[in-house]
Amino acid sequence: MDQKEGHLQLTETSSRAEEGGGLTGFERRMLTGLLEACEHPKLSIVLWNGEELRGSSSEEPVARMHVRDRGALFRMLINPELYTGDDYSAGRVEIEGDLVGCLEQIFRGLDSLPDKSVKARLLRWMNRPRANTLAGSKENIHRHYDLGNDFYRLWLDTEAMQYTCAYYARPDMTIEQAQRSKLDHVARKVQLKPGDVVYEAGCGWGGLARHFVKHHGAGKVRAFNISEEQVRFAREEARRQGLDGRIEYVLDDYRNMSGECDVFVSVGMLEHVGVENYPALGDVINRVLKPHGRGLVHSIGRNKAAPMNAWIEKRIFPGAYPATLAQMMQIFEEHQFSVLDVENIRLHYAQTLQHWLDRFESHEDKVREMYDERFVRMWRLYLAGSKATFLVGALQLFQIVFARGQDNTVPFTRDHLYRI
Amino acid sequence: MDQKEGHLQLTETSSRAEEGGGLTGFERRMLTGLLEACEHPKLSIVLWNGEELRGSSSEEPVARMHVRDRGALFRMLINPELYTGDDYSAGRVEIEGDLVGCLEQIFRGLDSLPDKSVKARLLRWMNRPRANTLAGSKENIHRHYDLGNDFYRLWLDTEAMQYTCAYYARPDMTIEQAQRSKLDHVARKVQLKPGDVVYEAGCGWGGLARHFVKHHGAGKVRAFNISEEQVRFAREEARRQGLDGRIEYVLDDYRNMSGECDVFVSVGMLEHVGVENYPALGDVINRVLKPHGRGLVHSIGRNKAAPMNAWIEKRIFPGAYPATLAQMMQIFEEHQFSVLDVENIRLHYAQTLQHWLDRFESHEDKVREMYDERFVRMWRLYLAGSKATFLVGALQLFQIVFARGQDNTVPFTRDHLYRI
Repeated sequence: MDQKEGHLQLTETSSRAEEGGGLTGFERRMLTGLLEACEHPKLSIVLWNGEELRGSSSEEPVARMHVRDRGALFRMLINPELYTGDDYSAGRVEIEGDLVGCLEQIFRGLDSLPDKSVKARLLRWMNRPRANTLAGSKENIHRHYDLGNDFYRLWLDTEAMQYTCAYYARPDMTIEQAQRSKLDHVARKVQLKPGDVVYEAGCGWGGLARHFVKHHGAGKVRAFNISEEQVRFAREEARRQGLDGRIEYVLDDYRNMSGECDVFVSVGMLEHVGVENYPALGDVINRVLKPHGRGLVHSIGRNKAAPMNAWIEKRIFPGAYPATLAQMMQIFEEHQFSVLDVENIRLHYAQTLQHWLDRFESHEDKVREMYDERFVRMWRLYLAGSKATFLVGALQLFQIVFARGQDNTVPFTRDHLYRI
Repeated sequence: MDQKEGHLQLTETSSRAEEGGGLTGFERRMLTGLLEACEHPKLSIVLWNGEELRGSSSEEPVARMHVRDRGALFRMLINPELYTGDDYSAGRVEIEGDLVGCLEQIFRGLDSLPDKSVKARLLRWMNRPRANTLAGSKENIHRHYDLGNDFYRLWLDTEAMQYTCAYYARPDMTIEQAQRSKLDHVARKVQLKPGDVVYEAGCGWGGLARHFVKHHGAGKVRAFNISEEQVRFAREEARRQGLDGRIEYVLDDYRNMSGECDVFVSVGMLEHVGVENYPALGDVINRVLKPHGRGLVHSIGRNKAAPMNAWIEKRIFPGAYPATLAQMMQIFEEHQFSVLDVENIRLHYAQTLQHWLDRFESHEDKVREMYDERFVRMWRLYLAGSKATFLVGALQLFQIVFARGQDNTVPFTRDHLYRI
């Protein structure tokens, strides 16, 4: 969608844009101060009256951010991370030019605020994650998870609808190829053998289970998920493909796993587990994993402990938290699991998100029919912003392979992952 | 060396063996209790009077441990981890059969003592690491590090005398091939390019620097080490090979590094750094590493935090501490270094130690001439015990690759390590 055209549809914005007058001296000092504190991003800010302020005087801006009214400017000065997202969704802020590049500039800038500055501390306080799910979050959870399979089918890979980072074994892969390649990469990492019993914690639409049975000869996959709609879809798909005898999609919490398995996998669930529950996750794995079993945890992470981006945490994924590797080790230490391999494929998530964004944008009209313009803008910002977050290195994607500490049947080298 | 022959030379032991009498009721209960607490190791204990007690009544012992006198038994009951090592060195304890296998049984047993048992707590207190280097440790440091190049040359690889874990790209490699292969593996992991400036923290006898210059075209290597004897050897070797123009061996602490580098490596130094100094190591790396630089730390580690084996910590490497991955992350977090890759090659250390042990045993006569029988026994126990420690999974070997958090020139996959 052309950005300008998108804006023209926002009549709410057009009316607000008529608020008159330029910046007061105070507003100008505050805005200039914010741009300075953010280390002069390569952006320019265009105000409702047409005035343009450049973040960097020496470098060309990658994008122009239009602030349509004085209220949006105030909100940006108070809490740029949170409110700029809201105001973009509402059309009170518009980006002209490269959306991802613009967000990279903003995230790099916010990241460079000194940790102990008053502004940084104030933002941390305002953007602190909610300890409990409040009424406000419920609406957001509902918006994210109950959007329905028809919506996700529009822009995720068509084969298995994997809503997690793909693995581009070759850089020119399509999203379908890269998602398949991710499952193969995971299967090789856990040395999946024909007949193996696999337990999966958090299975989304169930693609991993079907792939492991179809292409790697898994004997049985028990895949846990608490989303009814996803489990219903996964079961139907397994039945349609004649795989339902070897796959059990369990509508239950991973903490209720029982029995035993050769392989434990969890792809993209840890983000929602909460650090305080990592030892409990370790207890579950210790309960079910056989003596020579292998495990893999695939999760978004951080280089340094910090909360999730405030807008994403509050508007998209309430309660989500990307942990550091040190924090993730709380899963493994108590039972002396041995971490065999950690791979950081952050750049693959940037590429995955670009593929999702391309496909989302090519279906924007349909999305607008299903929802509304605000939803289209919110979702575009979320996908573009997530890509920018991985590109600036604010988020990582870790795949952690582990086994029991005394198991000497672990692979001697990682050749089996590459010499295929 | 034949174990029996070794024993016969220990006249001190022979005289002690004449202490008469069998076990008292109390001694028998204590010894039986220790074997039970250690989950019935597949060992038998043969007393000075010929009486034999089997750890496991159902399984064949892998070795027989001869306790030559009542004093050695007492010491074993009080602190098996520490004193059994001392008494083996003194010949008051002898192992008949597979030494490494016997030590694996002991370490598995000690490891299975419940963490909160009185015995386990007492052992932790007795074996706590010394906070400072006391007079007693000085003697041990001296014994380990000033043994001289002639001693280490007897059993380390002949090419570069690398006193760190090798990498067996193929399982049938010799120690020379595997040490070369380790250096190649490290060079590929840091994507070493011709002309790169490399800083090395803790360089041993300097083999990495020479290999990087000779075989990977490093432009300049500055390698830091505080051991005078090792630095002298390394400088002579570089001169002899005509490499001294491109290698600077610096007799100084890594904390005094200045300037900047494309590659930072540290192979086998972290064990002696101390967790409390990890943030300082991170500061050093942050000071010297260029924006697109790569780093690698290679170190012994743990699955769960615990002190070093007491005998090794007190008799061989005072102050040594194998950290967990979570602890190692303290090097990287503050400056938001991005951990790209962690590989655990613990089984390679078991194989490295077997190669060292084989070569050491084939030169035992020479070692006995240089030192004495107690030294031969102590060193044999140290090498065999270290191998057993890696085999039972009590120690790990981590290679951690990292880069700056915002660097998007990091490799997309790990293909470059394997498709060569």
